Amino acid sequence: MKKFIHNVPVRWSDMDAYGHVNNARFLTLYEEARVAMFFVGAREHGLGSFEEGIVIARHEVDYLRPVDYGDPVRIEMWICEQRAASFTVAYELFDDDVPASRARSVCVPYNLANGHPRRLSEAEREFLRPYLES
Amino acid sequence: MKKFIHNVPVRWSDMDAYGHVNNARFLTLYEEARVAMFFVGAREHGLGSFEEGIVIARHEVDYLRPVDYGDPVRIEMWICEQRAASFTVAYELFDDDVPASRARSVCVPYNLANGHPRRLSEAEREFLRPYLES
Amino acid sequence: MKKFIHNVPVRWSDMDAYGHVNNARFLTLYEEARVAMFFVGAREHGLGSFEEGIVIARHEVDYLRPVDYGDPVRIEMWICEQRAASFTVAYELFDDDVPASRARSVCVPYNLANGHPRRLSEAEREFLRPYLES
Amino acid sequence: MKKFIHNVPVRWSDMDAYGHVNNARFLTLYEEARVAMFFVGAREHGLGSFEEGIVIARHEVDYLRPVDYGDPVRIEMWICEQRAASFTVAYELFDDDVPASRARSVCVPYNLANGHPRRLSEAEREFLRPYLES
Repeated sequence: MKKFIHNVPVRWSDMDAYGHVNNARFLTLYEEARVAMFFVGAREHGLGSFEEGIVIARHEVDYLRPVDYGDPVRIEMWICEQRAASFTVAYELFDDDVPASRARSVCVPYNLANGHPRRLSEAEREFLRPYLES
Repeated sequence: MKKFIHNVPVRWSDMDAYGHVNNARFLTLYEEARVAMFFVGAREHGLGSFEEGIVIARHEVDYLRPVDYGDPVRIEMWICEQRAASFTVAYELFDDDVPASRARSVCVPYNLANGHPRRLSEAEREFLRPYLES
Repeated sequence: MKKFIHNVPVRWSDMDAYGHVNNARFLTLYEEARVAMFFVGAREHGLGSFEEGIVIARHEVDYLRPVDYGDPVRIEMWICEQRAASFTVAYELFDDDVPASRARSVCVPYNLANGHPRRLSEAEREFLRPYLES
Repeated sequence: MKKFIHNVPVRWSDMDAYGHVNNARFLTLYEEARVAMFFVGAREHGLGSFEEGIVIARHEVDYLRPVDYGDPVRIEMWICEQRAASFTVAYELFDDDVPASRARSVCVPYNLANGHPRRLSEAEREFLRPYLES
């Protein structure tokens, strides 16, 4: 299984009044990695359908240790579950090579024209295959 | 079981490029309600210990329907689980009286002086009791 | 001259690592008031053209004293300058009735169809008139 | 005159409902560059006094063209004015080598112990000197 790896710089403004990266902001860091994989990365494979419509159905985030302003965090991503009409992205977030958070996002491909969830296309399955947890 | 109810105004800037409230921003709306209950609300009961140290160990968020800029959302909160050294807040978020999202946050009381998790105090258990799911 | 008055609740997450509302976030508080006046307020007058296209050409913000998480701030707005193809919004932000910040935004009506700035329409001038500084 | 140059990655979440980087968010991009110069950069010169207390007294921002999610923006900074107890940072923000915004921030060194503005120290003047517009 291949992992998609993306470094996300932490901004000073990501910190909250406790002086650590705010827990809600972790979802923005994960989003930044997800966008890099499913919008920018998929587009380079000629696949624009994720960008036009993925809906997030669920997020789970575990916080292992606080992250502070400083070096970029490294996010590693793969697909931990794939169904006919949804897939789940798993993430690990490393700060100085130490795991600081883990997360999962249930993603639902969506047909914007008729406003309904839809099945994954063959091209989308092809794109996800190398990242699929066995 | 009592619920803690808090209305959170949605800001125009909560919307992302898709024109709906961004999924990461829901955690900020939930945070706003949690702060109202555990910081402001608890302080009115003479209880400042939550404000000095609650660490979030885990969030789970389910997205049921998109929320747009407009009226405040109503967040209802209660305690769905209580252990010796942690408790779990359950939330429902209503947009125009329709459930739009549900979430859970595992909260760990923390001793800032020695940097370790700690047990819930008797005063804290007292504060949580009316909201405890039976 | 009439003032448009809008209360904006301060969120806990508006605070930065210094424990005060972040200076960049003031523009979001001002934006929230501007949207209330030019989108929601104007729409109630049957005027949707501001919402479809106002571009911000310039902001100026003065910071008089720090603002903390707590009560909503009160923002008072009026039009301090009106030209053929732009107008300037002036704001005062009050925290507990004490002025904490002042700002100005140069707003340019925009024709989204052809991508060019445009003159204010008669209906727009009508809407701005009561708020115009003499 | 030397310029301090800092690249700031644009996040997908920096876009607002219009699909461009939100105008308030530009101050966050400028903040990120300012922090790199006055916190991280100055610290490497053994100068921690800016980090302990700079208060922003005023921001001015001009918007020249919209910025979208994509490559990092390049921010160039210098000191356009220096007084006994304040200095003004000037910035230019480039998107694909085209100027997209300009800004100025009036910064006031602050004595956190007694809560008063203070004069620039000799070490601080030394740090600013190469960046001073003549």
